Parts: sequence; C-alpha cells; structure tokens
Amino acid sequence: MKYCFGVDIGGTTVKMGLFEENGGILDKWEITTDISDEGKAILPDVAASIGKKISEHQLDKNDIIGIGAGVPAPVTSEGIVNGSANLGWNYKEVKKELEELSGLKAEIGNDANVAALGEMWKGGGAGEKNMIMVTLGTGVGGGVIIDGKILVGQNGAGGEIGHLCVNYEETDKCGCGNRGCLEQYASATGIVRLAKKKLGQDMRPTILKKEDITAKDVFDAVKAGDEVAKEIAVEFGTCLGHALANLAAVTDPAVFVIGGGVSKAGEVLIPYIQQPYMERAFFANRKVRFTLATLGNDAGICGAAKLVIDKA
Amino acid sequence: MKYCFGVDIGGTTVKMGLFEENGGILDKWEITTDISDEGKAILPDVAASIGKKISEHQLDKNDIIGIGAGVPAPVTSEGIVNGSANLGWNYKEVKKELEELSGLKAEIGNDANVAALGEMWKGGGAGEKNMIMVTLGTGVGGGVIIDGKILVGQNGAGGEIGHLCVNYEETDKCGCGNRGCLEQYASATGIVRLAKKKLGQDMRPTILKKEDITAKDVFDAVKAGDEVAKEIAVEFGTCLGHALANLAAVTDPAVFVIGGGVSKAGEVLIPYIQQPYMERAFFANRKVRFTLATLGNDAGICGAAKLVIDKA
Repeated sequence: MKYCFGVDIGGTTVKMGLFEENGGILDKWEITTDISDEGKAILPDVAASIGKKISEHQLDKNDIIGIGAGVPAPVTSEGIVNGSANLGWNYKEVKKELEELSGLKAEIGNDANVAALGEMWKGGGAGEKNMIMVTLGTGVGGGVIIDGKILVGQNGAGGEIGHLCVNYEETDKCGCGNRGCLEQYASATGIVRLAKKKLGQDMRPTILKKEDITAKDVFDAVKAGDEVAKEIAVEFGTCLGHALANLAAVTDPAVFVIGGGVSKAGEVLIPYIQQPYMERAFFANRKVRFTLATLGNDAGICGAAKLVIDKA
Repeated sequence: MKYCFGVDIGGTTVKMGLFEENGGILDKWEITTDISDEGKAILPDVAASIGKKISEHQLDKNDIIGIGAGVPAPVTSEGIVNGSANLGWNYKEVKKELEELSGLKAEIGNDANVAALGEMWKGGGAGEKNMIMVTLGTGVGGGVIIDGKILVGQNGAGGEIGHLCVNYEETDKCGCGNRGCLEQYASATGIVRLAKKKLGQDMRPTILKKEDITAKDVFDAVKAGDEVAKEIAVEFGTCLGHALANLAAVTDPAVFVIGGGVSKAGEVLIPYIQQPYMERAFFANRKVRFTLATLGNDAGICGAAKLVIDKA
C-alpha cells in the first residue's frame, strides 16, 4: 500500500490528512496557520508536521507518493503562487519549496479547485469525470473538472465562477470591482443582500426578521413555507441556475455539486437552482445531475491527496 | 519522418490533407460528401481516398501515425457521434468504423473544436496552450483548448459558446429554441438581424442599404466611418466581449482567436470586442490577447492532423 498527505492551507488553520492511495483516511489533524512575516513559516510548519506524522506512523518514505496541497490563491500549473492575501504570500514557488522542505514530491492547487477534485474522488461527484463544483460560502467559489483533471488555466484562475456576470443592470459593486457578479446573488452574503432589499420593499407578513438576517434564516423560512423567503430563494436560484446553464454550454459537465455553507440548507436548494437551469440550458446539457457536496470540510484534504496521486 | 492525414468532413465537401508530423502540408485535396442514404458512404469514401493517396505518395503504412477527422456534430471522447443533421448520420461509432475501413489509427473530434486545435498548432494561437477560438460564421461556434487539449465534455458538447445567453430580455428566438444566445448577436446572421433592427428605428443617413444587407456590408461601412454602422458594431462587440469575459472567468485563456466569415473584416473587429471585454473581465483575465485566425479553411484539416498526432 502507498500513502500520501493531503493538505488544505487556510488563513486560520492548516488541515491535514494521511491517506491510503485508495482513498482511506488514516489520520486527520490540523495546525495553526502562522501568517506573520509574510507567511514564511507556513510551508516549514507543514513539512515539519508531516515529518512528525511519518515517524509516528513509522512510514517508509519510499511508500509515500507525496504531498498535495490546496492554497487560497490562483496557482499556476508549475505550482507557483503570485500572491495570497489570506496567507501573506507574495510570489512563491510553493511546489519547489515544499518539495525541498519535505524531501517528498509535492503538487499544489487552488483550494476551491482542489475541493472540487475531492468531491469528484470521494464525494457528490464520485464516479464522474466531468464535474463542476459550486461553493456557496461567504463568496462563490468553484472548480471545474474536465476529464478527471482540474481546469487550471493560464494564470491558475480557472473556475472563478463567482465572477460570472449574471446581471448587466446591477448598480451595487462586487468585491472584485465589477457589477452583477454571481457572487452578489448566490453567496451567503449575496443572499442576505437580496433578502434585505426584498424586506425593504415587500410589506407582506413574513417570519424573516429585518435585522441580523442570515442565509440560513432565509432557507429555514423557505422550509417553513414563508412566501417572501421563497421569492428570495427564486431570485437566488434564477441567478445561479442561469449562470450554470452558461457554464454548461462551455464545459458540458455530467454533474453539478453544490457545496459551501449555504448548501447546508440541504435538498430544498436543488429545485430552486435546477428549474431556471433547465429553462436556459442548451439541449445537449439538459441531463446534467444536481447534487449536494458530501465531504464538508474534508473536501480540501481529500482533493489535495488526489492531486498528488494523479500526478504520480 | 512520420506522416498523418487530417480530414474535415462537412455537409458539402470533405477537405483532406497529408501532413508531416512537424506540421508541413504535403498534399491537400477534397472530395464531395455523399450524404445520401444516411451518409453511409462518407467514411468508406474517406478511407478509399486516403488509400489512393498512400499509394500515390508511396508511403509506408508504418510511417503513418493515423487519421484525424473533424465532423459537424458533438463527438464523445470515444469517437462516437449520436447524430449529425449535416451528414445524415444517426448513432455512429466513427472512430471504430474509420479504423476498420482504413487499417489506420483514427481520432475524431467536433469540427469547431478541431479547428480551434488547428489554430493553436499553426495559426493565431500558435505557442499557446490555453486558447479559445470563436468562429463567427452563419452561427457562432467555438473551441476551448485547455493545457493543449480540446475541452470535449461529457457529451462531446464542450465549447458551445454560441449558446451562452447574453440577453435575458431578448424576445426573438435562437435556432436552439432559447432566447438571447450569443449567436443571435455575433454571427453573420445575428449582425444582419441587429442591422435590420437598427435601420428600422434609426433615421440618420447611412451608407448601409436597407435590403439584402450582409455582415460584410456592416463592417465595410464601419471602415468608411459610417456612424450607424459603428453603433451596430458596438452592439455586436458588447454582446461578444461580455460573453468572452464570462468565458474567461471559467477557463482563464491566454488568447482569444477570432475566426469565421465575419472575421474577414479584419483588425477593425478587435477593439469592438476587446473594449467591452475589458469592462467586464475578472482582474486575473485582463491580459488575454485578442487575435484573428490565420488558417482560414485549413484550420479543420490542420487541427484534425494535430488531434491524431497528440494521441500517438
């Protein structure tokens, strides 16, 4: 049996896992991300932590395929990052540094893309080779998997589906500087924005409170049958479903996997997304399956492990 | 030196070329496409024509890499077509049939995708590995090349960029049944549609005539400084540029190659597309180059040859 490490480097913690080649997880732990001093300690900390686990599990280095790592930044196909605000990094040859520090082969990917690969390996997209993962969190992230491989692109910025423009008439600005990005309608923050607008205009009774509203409140109200909340969900789902129809025309996936915090609302989400998708999908793309992500916070470490296994 | 054949099967003619492995074209010819009787003679005709050329050039079969072919239909990664209206085909195992008929290895792709591969190999995208080709002809076709390979997708329908929705308010129907597809604004037919609408509403003097107008007339008038024609070009370019910005957010290309009949207008097109692109492009995608296709009708045979070379 061969082994590998999957590493998910976030701005607060680094999640790590020791995997068997066939996908079994032998160990799972995390360390704190030290972002001080331009994050220079992050990779040495990761390498040291992995070294300790190799001793602890008495692994033979010859049986270790390598280390896969996801990082919150675009990553080129050479494993180079040109800057990560979350980690404090500027230009960094992540693959090269991690290989030198660990003495193991390393493969690096963008965290959202790597999570998508994880969901394809062991999660909602298992069994498929053409998959799009949509992560509905504070922002909208995504990963496009084509023929089993992450669509990385020229600058490592493939799969930035949160910044598809879905409304050219939008007047509010997205964090990226554009107006009308999918993220403004389908992220947790975007759903709250839609809800506040709606509640400011709509005088019908609703169980939604006007202050401190969350995306979860909106979908809880949908489940309770609240008509105002349902209309917010329609607006969310229309933007997302239409964007996914455009995505499908380009990438022709077998399955959409919906993950991130918003997806905790569960199956109730799916019809709100799927119906507007079907209204707009090109005929060749009408059989795409919609499903929820299943790996939760483990998607990153799983996908990272798969990344290095696939390159072995 | 090794050799291969590139074949571009269209509804009227089959274009064929004999290539050296390094890209040199040794011979180029075409035969008529016999679409009678569900197009059953097409592949035998292709195989026979190639057999004749092998004798004529006294080639040793051991020096032949194989046959690449582009066909006007979605093609799965197994080389299967589920129907081609232009050729009269229903379900057809094209790769298998052509291999059996010719005794050579065969690789099959969608014609628009294969033309994109050709432009990457020897045309406007030469030197790049991440490229999007946009073919502005009677319709709008395209091909997405990621890391040097065609994005085929689950059903062979990857790269159908003509059916990206760019206007959710459109009332006219596209040929595909949807409303607001890019094809309705950026194809030769679409440009004529925009021109007719404009000329019906706009009373300013223009050198554009009202009857039998073509896309070429519009861009000739643009070159002559006609203000009405310029506004039509702005509408065309805005739809296309915005669609390409969305495409770039997903696929992160290095270059857009603009081809097809409309692209014969030349460099005058580029700023009309590039400016609205830049207004909407995600920051990671602002360095994408725009260029014209250079291979014309040879893109298909070149890309088909490259397809089989890459799989060798």
